[in-house]
Amino acid sequence: MSTAGQVIRCKAAVAWEAGKPLSIEEVEVAPPQKDEVRIKILFTALCHTDIYYWECKGYTPLFPRILGHEASGIVESVGEGVTDVKPGDHVLPIFTGECKECKHCLSEESNNMCDLLRINCDRGVMLADGKTRFSINGKPIYHFVGTSTFSQYTVVHVGQVAKINPTAPLDKVCPISCGICTGFGATVNVAKPKKGQTVAIFGLGAVGLAAAEGARICGASRIIAVDLNPRRFEEAKRFGITEFVNPKDYDKPVQEVIVEMTGGGVDRSVECTGSVQAMISAFECVHDGWGVCVLVGVPKKDDAFMTHPLNLLSERTLKGAFYGNYKPRTDIPMVVDKYLNKELGLDMDKFITHSVPFADINKAFDYMLQGIGLRCMIHLDA
Amino acid sequence: MSTAGQVIRCKAAVAWEAGKPLSIEEVEVAPPQKDEVRIKILFTALCHTDIYYWECKGYTPLFPRILGHEASGIVESVGEGVTDVKPGDHVLPIFTGECKECKHCLSEESNNMCDLLRINCDRGVMLADGKTRFSINGKPIYHFVGTSTFSQYTVVHVGQVAKINPTAPLDKVCPISCGICTGFGATVNVAKPKKGQTVAIFGLGAVGLAAAEGARICGASRIIAVDLNPRRFEEAKRFGITEFVNPKDYDKPVQEVIVEMTGGGVDRSVECTGSVQAMISAFECVHDGWGVCVLVGVPKKDDAFMTHPLNLLSERTLKGAFYGNYKPRTDIPMVVDKYLNKELGLDMDKFITHSVPFADINKAFDYMLQGIGLRCMIHLDA
Repeated sequence: MSTAGQVIRCKAAVAWEAGKPLSIEEVEVAPPQKDEVRIKILFTALCHTDIYYWECKGYTPLFPRILGHEASGIVESVGEGVTDVKPGDHVLPIFTGECKECKHCLSEESNNMCDLLRINCDRGVMLADGKTRFSINGKPIYHFVGTSTFSQYTVVHVGQVAKINPTAPLDKVCPISCGICTGFGATVNVAKPKKGQTVAIFGLGAVGLAAAEGARICGASRIIAVDLNPRRFEEAKRFGITEFVNPKDYDKPVQEVIVEMTGGGVDRSVECTGSVQAMISAFECVHDGWGVCVLVGVPKKDDAFMTHPLNLLSERTLKGAFYGNYKPRTDIPMVVDKYLNKELGLDMDKFITHSVPFADINKAFDYMLQGIGLRCMIHLDA
Repeated sequence: MSTAGQVIRCKAAVAWEAGKPLSIEEVEVAPPQKDEVRIKILFTALCHTDIYYWECKGYTPLFPRILGHEASGIVESVGEGVTDVKPGDHVLPIFTGECKECKHCLSEESNNMCDLLRINCDRGVMLADGKTRFSINGKPIYHFVGTSTFSQYTVVHVGQVAKINPTAPLDKVCPISCGICTGFGATVNVAKPKKGQTVAIFGLGAVGLAAAEGARICGASRIIAVDLNPRRFEEAKRFGITEFVNPKDYDKPVQEVIVEMTGGGVDRSVECTGSVQAMISAFECVHDGWGVCVLVGVPKKDDAFMTHPLNLLSERTLKGAFYGNYKPRTDIPMVVDKYLNKELGLDMDKFITHSVPFADINKAFDYMLQGIGLRCMIHLDA
């Protein structure tokens, strides 16, 4: 029996307050309104950004809230005016949208800075009416980045839905919706190392390792990883990392270590930690004359990137990359197709190191907080 | 009678100490050694960089010295091993060289960061023997950036000589050897605005106006100039500037003014002042999603470029450009040819606002210090 137009009761993991374990609750999910889509979420993974907003350090608290943004699922029903997807379509909800109408979406040069649906971590409601679609006994539960995928059903704006090839295994392609595209795209779309060049990757989480995969696939000759955790190195070799530098092992700035190792600096670097000191090191370790540094990691609120302007004038380039420079609705289905056709050389199984049933979602938080594994797949039906 | 192999006695403008008027002296110019070229300088212009090192604020003093680096002339004789140019060739001496053998010169991605002949403002001697080729009664007079063109004859490394089309008028193409390429190249080679895009130019000296010419020729729809001197605007209109912003007229940062004027920021910006505050403004006034800021101006020794990393993560790009990203010996002859064929749309007469005989070289310093005109052409034969 169709559930379209009806309130659905399902399980969701609710964050009631900052830093406290999530609680699996029965929630009501309202039907999608104009330009909205209700999705049955099958798989979701945990990403650092969920942790940041769950810990809420330095951010305005917005609770109770349903977190989650790296996910895959099937359209359950659509609201008025939605023609891009229909019930039964396989989709990835995307935390940063594409309205296809604003100056950014229409620009040939821009990708994912949509005026309407750009990532917004502070908004906990839907755009249509400024209200939430989740509630428990009438009490509203707030959304997160327009996706809130820690729920068996969620409602998102149609501009935040990428319709993908229905033959794609939803448990494998789930991380393409955030971490993989963010890191992989930063290298292949923005840093663009040429065959034989050297690349430094700062940070060996899933994003950094996806960036390393990008460098490997571009044919980089040396991929130097920088991380404070030496346990990361063995695992990282499987992602193409050839050398490892732990800043703790040296008395001098890590950029100087890398410049010496490479006889002048790496050709490209990709910063995936969000530490402003790592950003500065990543920039200052690229070769003069041609070096390109790409910043991916999310900084703290009051950080300042600082460098001597001569480091730029010696013909270095500094770029920021958001979501791997992919256009969310337009490009992501193509990324999934390329993954299916083995054109990307990406082995998603390497990223998915753990899996838990929905009831054990707090274990995924524990793994990430302890730096264990890369992606923990949460099975919402299990 | 040939002067090859002999010491030449000629007039040169010698800086005996920091900030004091130059003195026209009779100097001895030694013959060129291995890989060196002696050039009869016919025209030289004054550039801000000469002023910096003449004033010597914050730099190590190196006097007595012959300054000058924007010039044109004719090869008088060549040293051992020089095959690229021969006596009679028309040339532009270039302050940053190209050895054609180092990692930078051989790289497809690098242009003018030659390991051997990269600009060096602190070295006052020739590479071959660590000595100078200038003297007065046996007392050595130091070189400047390997060119020292405030002399009727000078000796330079062959890697710092661009052989140009002999039909090019040497009085017109002289500024191509520094200011014009620096500004024009920063826009057309690095910022690369597309037709119809908006461009902000910081600083309306010769470099900034050459950058504006580049924007005009690329088809920019609006070219917004930023300068503290309102007298600059009328003159600047002739170089394609469409709007003028004087930071002194506003209570808020000039980047905010430009963002408001343009509904989100300009597509490209080029910073040609060297003020670190202007660099920050130039970066922060480009549009998120696609904006590119190019830094050209030479900063002070202890400056720090500083911005919030989120300004980068919103997909902005920051690049430094040196010498307009041109490869000195390889590209400059082509720039001169394109100028002659009217392919660049550059009218050199607009840049050359004054001219003086060599004896009046100090007038050129006065004009620049007072912000009068753009380039003052100094006639060494007059």
